[in-house]
Amino acid sequence: MSLTVVGSIAFDAVKTPFGERERMLGGAATHFSLAASFFTEVRPVGPVGEDFGAAEFAVLEARGIRTDDIERVPGGKSFFWRGHYEYDLNVAHTDDTQLGVFAEFEPKLSEASRSADTLFLANIQPDLQRQVRAQCGSAGLSGLDSMNLWIETARDSLVAAVAEVDCLVVNDAEIRMLTGESNLARAARAVMAMGPRAVIAKQGEYGAALFTGEGFFALPGFPLEDVRDPTGAGDSFAGGFFGYLDGLGREPGEAELRQAMGYGTVLASFNVEEFGTERVARLSREEIDERFEQLRAMTQFEGLASAAE
Amino acid sequence: MSLTVVGSIAFDAVKTPFGERERMLGGAATHFSLAASFFTEVRPVGPVGEDFGAAEFAVLEARGIRTDDIERVPGGKSFFWRGHYEYDLNVAHTDDTQLGVFAEFEPKLSEASRSADTLFLANIQPDLQRQVRAQCGSAGLSGLDSMNLWIETARDSLVAAVAEVDCLVVNDAEIRMLTGESNLARAARAVMAMGPRAVIAKQGEYGAALFTGEGFFALPGFPLEDVRDPTGAGDSFAGGFFGYLDGLGREPGEAELRQAMGYGTVLASFNVEEFGTERVARLSREEIDERFEQLRAMTQFEGLASAAE
Repeated sequence: MSLTVVGSIAFDAVKTPFGERERMLGGAATHFSLAASFFTEVRPVGPVGEDFGAAEFAVLEARGIRTDDIERVPGGKSFFWRGHYEYDLNVAHTDDTQLGVFAEFEPKLSEASRSADTLFLANIQPDLQRQVRAQCGSAGLSGLDSMNLWIETARDSLVAAVAEVDCLVVNDAEIRMLTGESNLARAARAVMAMGPRAVIAKQGEYGAALFTGEGFFALPGFPLEDVRDPTGAGDSFAGGFFGYLDGLGREPGEAELRQAMGYGTVLASFNVEEFGTERVARLSREEIDERFEQLRAMTQFEGLASAAE
Repeated sequence: MSLTVVGSIAFDAVKTPFGERERMLGGAATHFSLAASFFTEVRPVGPVGEDFGAAEFAVLEARGIRTDDIERVPGGKSFFWRGHYEYDLNVAHTDDTQLGVFAEFEPKLSEASRSADTLFLANIQPDLQRQVRAQCGSAGLSGLDSMNLWIETARDSLVAAVAEVDCLVVNDAEIRMLTGESNLARAARAVMAMGPRAVIAKQGEYGAALFTGEGFFALPGFPLEDVRDPTGAGDSFAGGFFGYLDGLGREPGEAELRQAMGYGTVLASFNVEEFGTERVARLSREEIDERFEQLRAMTQFEGLASAAE
């Protein structure tokens, strides 16, 4: 099985109440790929600049990520994001965004990336998402993330892109904004009427909720006493979710989607424990499975005793 | 088993995007009592004015609620709250508060109310909460709600009141405010260091989270496509939670606390479907149990099939 993801591969400068980093590996496709790498073969697609060097590639390759479709643009500069968080870690404040090589990005997928079983379109301009979707027509499962900027400035393109995927994964405020419907259950239904058969509402520290035609499932964020940097939490969630599903190698049913919500939650929780990719880069599958079982125990009506049986 | 609750018994004027009521039965003790009445004998304690008549008493008595300790003050006016909600139903905007007979309230519990097995101190001035707690010393289980006003204006009294109960039930922002700790898991631990052995963080539409010395449990809000008036949701949650626990008639363990979280969530969900007490007043135990099972199915990792077994 294999999973292609298109999105930013970048450098981030981040300051939170718990520390700061002036320049670290980041980007949606990076966080997604690292999270998904515990479950399947991942191929990130996207451009980087000459400033993206062996050290950055090494972080990805150490996790077995196939970097062939990361296009290094001669003379170019990588996408750069600078942001900070106050004590409310749910709100990211953007201080600077430099598109760099992303401004001229024209997706050209290799044969291996085109033939992926699963495709994730991380948050980029929706026309680019559609170009990638068209090149990767064989994917049996596809997902898409987006943001308020594209809802405001490229709504028609975004709606067309949403119509072409199986699962929309965005913040709950964006589901409301996209559909103009304040009630989340109604908003999710409106998204499904556009095409997707599943909608995931990311809710920051409150966790995430899954809407499908068959039902509703929600998980809290994994409770952590030390959260240092929430950057990339949503991308790590999506990476855990789609990585797990791709690794299954079969059409997911409701139960598999719920398990995938659990793995997404677990990967997001490790991601926020340290800055950037620091924690997930040295994570083990054993740690993931241990936390997954803790999360399951935390959501059992029957309490700890029976959960431990 | 029996449950005493002290708090406001009031009239509310409420406007939401989905309708309005100029004067309806409300108040924290009212919503709490109606929710708890499905599980045990409930005794609300609090003052009302001469404007509180047979029609209002009838709503409570139809649910078997013991109204002996509702003190009708000659010449007095009942507590009155006027508020409205925009499309974000998580935020209540207060337009007017008239304390009426509550301004002179001195709690005097009857023998029956004093000897309750369970006591809930709804959101009132913390010194009043402490007076009631002192009169109801035999309660084996006690809970307390509060609000930002008391954290700001009567913090020492509130901390003393919190120390005297088993379970704090407040909004998550209030847990942070009370403890000065932005991380919710740490804030909950700080509350437990004050005395309570359980802390419930109410999170509006995101549901509620339970922290105990043994673990963590969280439930999403029950997903509803029609929410008309969120007033009293938190009190209905607390009523379902403590009503269920009191009705058990035994010391609750972790599993019982989790079940109680489920009943709290279910009662809150019915409460918000219509204005004021309208929906809960005509609710049945069968409807409650049906929704409880739906909620359980929504939180099972194993999916719908196994949940239905």
